[in-house]
Amino acid sequence: MSTEHVIVSADGLRAYVARFMRRFDVHEQDAAIAADVLVAADLRGVESHGVIRLHSYYGSRLKQGHINPRAPLTVLHETPATLALDGGNGLGQPIAHRAMTRCIEKAQEVGAAFVTVRNSNHFGIAGYYAMMALPHRMIGLSLTNSQPLVVPTYGRRAMVGTNPIAIAAPTRHKRPFVLDMATSVVPIGKVTVYQKQGLPIPLGWAVNADGVPTTDPNEVVGGRGAVLPLGGTAEFRGYKGYGLGVMVDILCGVLSGAAFGPHVGRSHEGQTANIGHFFAAIRVDALGDADEFAANMDAMISDLQESPKATGEDRIYVAGEKEYELAEYREEHGIPLHPTTVEMLQQVGQQVGVPFDLA
Amino acid sequence: MSTEHVIVSADGLRAYVARFMRRFDVHEQDAAIAADVLVAADLRGVESHGVIRLHSYYGSRLKQGHINPRAPLTVLHETPATLALDGGNGLGQPIAHRAMTRCIEKAQEVGAAFVTVRNSNHFGIAGYYAMMALPHRMIGLSLTNSQPLVVPTYGRRAMVGTNPIAIAAPTRHKRPFVLDMATSVVPIGKVTVYQKQGLPIPLGWAVNADGVPTTDPNEVVGGRGAVLPLGGTAEFRGYKGYGLGVMVDILCGVLSGAAFGPHVGRSHEGQTANIGHFFAAIRVDALGDADEFAANMDAMISDLQESPKATGEDRIYVAGEKEYELAEYREEHGIPLHPTTVEMLQQVGQQVGVPFDLA
Repeated sequence: MSTEHVIVSADGLRAYVARFMRRFDVHEQDAAIAADVLVAADLRGVESHGVIRLHSYYGSRLKQGHINPRAPLTVLHETPATLALDGGNGLGQPIAHRAMTRCIEKAQEVGAAFVTVRNSNHFGIAGYYAMMALPHRMIGLSLTNSQPLVVPTYGRRAMVGTNPIAIAAPTRHKRPFVLDMATSVVPIGKVTVYQKQGLPIPLGWAVNADGVPTTDPNEVVGGRGAVLPLGGTAEFRGYKGYGLGVMVDILCGVLSGAAFGPHVGRSHEGQTANIGHFFAAIRVDALGDADEFAANMDAMISDLQESPKATGEDRIYVAGEKEYELAEYREEHGIPLHPTTVEMLQQVGQQVGVPFDLA
Repeated sequence: MSTEHVIVSADGLRAYVARFMRRFDVHEQDAAIAADVLVAADLRGVESHGVIRLHSYYGSRLKQGHINPRAPLTVLHETPATLALDGGNGLGQPIAHRAMTRCIEKAQEVGAAFVTVRNSNHFGIAGYYAMMALPHRMIGLSLTNSQPLVVPTYGRRAMVGTNPIAIAAPTRHKRPFVLDMATSVVPIGKVTVYQKQGLPIPLGWAVNADGVPTTDPNEVVGGRGAVLPLGGTAEFRGYKGYGLGVMVDILCGVLSGAAFGPHVGRSHEGQTANIGHFFAAIRVDALGDADEFAANMDAMISDLQESPKATGEDRIYVAGEKEYELAEYREEHGIPLHPTTVEMLQQVGQQVGVPFDLA
């Protein structure tokens, strides 16, 4: 196996992922959406949510029938400003894409809207759907719950998902504000990276099986311990991150009628996930002048970027900035795939009958 | 001066604060609202936002004409699901109370609604307004921006307010879920408490004038340093708390047309604050069965409370639980006021001509 990263074009990778999905009877349009969302993660430097998941998260579940590739999206309830949908255990990306599209349409009509989704699956990066609001000059919000990986403050068992919050706001000349954050300190995958390198983790990222903060990643991975909510321990107000995680679960899980807390299915173990999502769109011009808003967004971002730096630092970032820069670079110069990712894609492509031909 | 806490009844304290407000030509109804919000903070154990602020935040500003006690609340823009208001530099509490009332009315009609407010002032505890949604079987959201006290990640100057997020969700038998959190690790007042006691602060709460984390509260207070966003340093993902703080500022400041970032007025220095708020209400029965929602909220809360405890811990809390317990106790048994607070109320009451007669 090579130890060099393989550079592939974003278009090539999108086309490959779409072909892969089509092999499992996924509609052409849905396959294109799923491909775009997965590759968007690789473009933005969120490799953990990109094509690396093609096998475990999508291929194997579609193959085993744990996800219904032709699931209908059903309307459960509707008011002028709200819509509740059932995803029919379909692929998360096309479900979320349609839900956010409907949310934007409804906001167009009445100024703002909320959409809930039950009975869905992992939908990739939350930020993708929040960003769908931007070309419509809307603020977009995208939340999802996920399988339990985070310990409540003073607890020892993972009871809450990493439940991300994503919000996007349009600008004029500056890159849009895009916050896309898990409500845990770090994802469990980050702890695994330290474990593989034989390094200790910072105290405050995770707890061991007794619920006690640990620096030993071996005490955390494999379900032995759990990651802490944003903030970390109570001394650093980890109960705020815990509260935010539960808030996401209320909106995505309880309100939509999906699973919540420890009941969210561990779909890699063959359970139905019944994941829930929550979307919002707010038309900027419903609340003021859209041009003025965009100009003030630019001013706010400039204020932050140009404010005095801490000793030893030369740059202050605004949420989304790094990801936009990387995505622009990679869209033009290609996406570097780790050799183990390439090997995985080659193996899986062969099994499925869609050879990975980009390396 | 006595060193004992003085116990006063909640009703007595509300009546006193209302009389105090009335002395500054505040409408009777508005004075009652302001009193209820301030005393709610003392009831819930958030003394920093209670009657301790009667002098500096309200008395002196009203006296000096920095707040207009009879300001009209003006509608700037309206759609079925959104409403943009101008508070006319009035008292924050009655403005926010009316804005949330209108938000709930609009949600009643179209399922959900958002309301922005510009040109307002400090409104007390954000949770109060989120909780107004609860008796209507709605989920309530309440955000406000505030004067800059928080440093952006890699910065050294306070550019973002402590910008709280409050959300409330109804339940059946359990106490409602009420998250009410500043997006900084701690309020600056917490650092002052450590300074007065001559104690070091935990590393990761705040930075000094160079933007470097410090344990010395003397390097932080008085505008010398600044508090860190939730999470703390970048190693513990403080940029997420920073992103949340900016998100609140976008919704409350930029979207409403209020001041934002470092431009929020330091009204204790005689500037007009032009603070902005953002409210949302979502009718639970617009998205599903309200009884089922309430039952599932109870189940979620039970799951969390009953989950295994960390070594040395005997209880897991859900957001709002502690505050409800304390408020119930204090409503029945009285509110303990610190001797320095009593002394302040006595002095201010004398100056204003509304003697504090509860001690």
